Amino acid sequence: MEFDLITRIRARATRRDDVVLGIGDDAAVLSVSPGLQLVVAMDTLNDGVHFPRGTHPSDVGWKALAVNLSDLAAMGAQPAWCTLSLSLPAPDLQWVDAFLDGFLALAAIHHVALVGGDTTRGPLSVCVTVLGLIEPGQALRRDGAQVGDDVWVTGTLGDAAAGLALVLDATRVSLEKTDATPAIQSHALDSQGRETLRARLDRPTPRVTLGRALRGLATACIDVSDGLLADIAHVAQASHVGIDITLAALPVSDALRAHADGARLHMLQASGGDDYELAFTAASANRNALEVLAQDHGVRLSRIGAVRAGEGVVAFDADARRWDPARRGYQHFDPVG
Amino acid sequence: MEFDLITRIRARATRRDDVVLGIGDDAAVLSVSPGLQLVVAMDTLNDGVHFPRGTHPSDVGWKALAVNLSDLAAMGAQPAWCTLSLSLPAPDLQWVDAFLDGFLALAAIHHVALVGGDTTRGPLSVCVTVLGLIEPGQALRRDGAQVGDDVWVTGTLGDAAAGLALVLDATRVSLEKTDATPAIQSHALDSQGRETLRARLDRPTPRVTLGRALRGLATACIDVSDGLLADIAHVAQASHVGIDITLAALPVSDALRAHADGARLHMLQASGGDDYELAFTAASANRNALEVLAQDHGVRLSRIGAVRAGEGVVAFDADARRWDPARRGYQHFDPVG
Repeated sequence: MEFDLITRIRARATRRDDVVLGIGDDAAVLSVSPGLQLVVAMDTLNDGVHFPRGTHPSDVGWKALAVNLSDLAAMGAQPAWCTLSLSLPAPDLQWVDAFLDGFLALAAIHHVALVGGDTTRGPLSVCVTVLGLIEPGQALRRDGAQVGDDVWVTGTLGDAAAGLALVLDATRVSLEKTDATPAIQSHALDSQGRETLRARLDRPTPRVTLGRALRGLATACIDVSDGLLADIAHVAQASHVGIDITLAALPVSDALRAHADGARLHMLQASGGDDYELAFTAASANRNALEVLAQDHGVRLSRIGAVRAGEGVVAFDADARRWDPARRGYQHFDPVG
Repeated sequence: MEFDLITRIRARATRRDDVVLGIGDDAAVLSVSPGLQLVVAMDTLNDGVHFPRGTHPSDVGWKALAVNLSDLAAMGAQPAWCTLSLSLPAPDLQWVDAFLDGFLALAAIHHVALVGGDTTRGPLSVCVTVLGLIEPGQALRRDGAQVGDDVWVTGTLGDAAAGLALVLDATRVSLEKTDATPAIQSHALDSQGRETLRARLDRPTPRVTLGRALRGLATACIDVSDGLLADIAHVAQASHVGIDITLAALPVSDALRAHADGARLHMLQASGGDDYELAFTAASANRNALEVLAQDHGVRLSRIGAVRAGEGVVAFDADARRWDPARRGYQHFDPVG
């Protein structure tokens, strides 16, 4: 199985001048620009754990690269190369071609060359390593938040978690009915809204360009993969500070507003995962600069909290009461079907 | 599950001065020495596919890194860093600690720092990316073999395949008997011999130092992972040459000689996989230099064939007859149990 797939992948991979030797030898050889440091991230997506069973292969391909590029974005790094290890129960060339459609479409957007990896037999699983470059001392780390900083987030929050909830509801209902037709849930969400939420789950947008632009402006940065409160807690811990979050300030998409409100909205936004937005801290002196940045990049930036002395993360609801959901972190759903 | 494991791994990882930022942020930041190029390889091991079910976790850890270091060795690269993605059905800290025993023992030998990765829920699977360094133009590629070159191999061949055959025989017999006691097979192999062969399957030796020493001596190089004939065929194809292999010249360990002879020995040595020895080509003018190298490194080097004009790989038996087994490549075994 391995060699057909490698040929197939090699023929379609993006090319870069700094790839000395790409797919097809024991390892790739890459030329790192003088004066830059290397940034490396690796993330695996498993079938039924990190994406629902039956997700379209092109979406699996997109997401496998997106979650990794999101890690580079959170560092302010410029992506350059990636490797891919694809485990498949059987060599299914149609599946692989569709997978590559999604994977390579996103790679092309960010000019990332696929330079190696392997294909093996096993339960469906996708492991990706991304390699990027950063100017020395410029990486957006988790440990730089300062007391008095603002807390910001890109885009909107909670859409992916809502998209996942829709998938799970549909699956549950169709299983109970032993009927493949997804049920329409009891909320005022039209089919376009559902598609919008599902797309945010399947095809997250890694904030690569914005991450680059945050160098020198943000003091700390992380991507929201496990849920805002869980992820921002890593920044608080690494920076030895406390963080207050104002739930009413969390950016809500139109699709999500039609889908949820009240406590459910808070839960999806504060604890839902898979958004792959950037949460970052910045000095309040940079507010204007960040608003200009948002305009220039066409990316929504919302000020959602503040860094204080102390430790831990506290979220406040619209009545300025502490909001303390039992479940703050995002748990990947159980395999279904 | 993720964070406990990350803490556990971080506490035990080898340190290097060129790791600017290691485990614990969104990505690692690494300092590449000026004037060197980066070499990257990635390989996944799946439970029951690349190692037998029930393999000791410390052996899984060793092997997962070894097969990747072997790819760097085949390029003549100096290993530096690695990332690890570990999928486990459940968070089993005892299993992880044993896994890390093997993984980090090998990492320490080669001074490789574990700088990132992730731990996820899913069927047992280990994906590793290794990063190494090479002087520009010095990489041992597959496409440099010249007509008239000798073909060489390190160490001994066929041990790992024999080790696997012993595991499968024992499994089959014990399953048939519904008895956990492995059966002793009908060949004159004592328990130490069996252990030697099994150890070659479970704990391959990546030829890192020797690979480094082959720079400037070898014209092409590959590691033997899928079987000698299948792997050397990649060299022949990439170099646009033919290769003749003399089966009688293939290096046999004492343990393997006690286990197999005749056609079965040829099959194990020529088509068995998982040896992770280096097969390489070199000008005949370098014979003395290579023999000195073997002495200096305490690694057996055997001259096993020659590069000719044409294409394809032909193996000759002791009577100089073409040997043409139906199955030349190594197929990973089916999951058992």
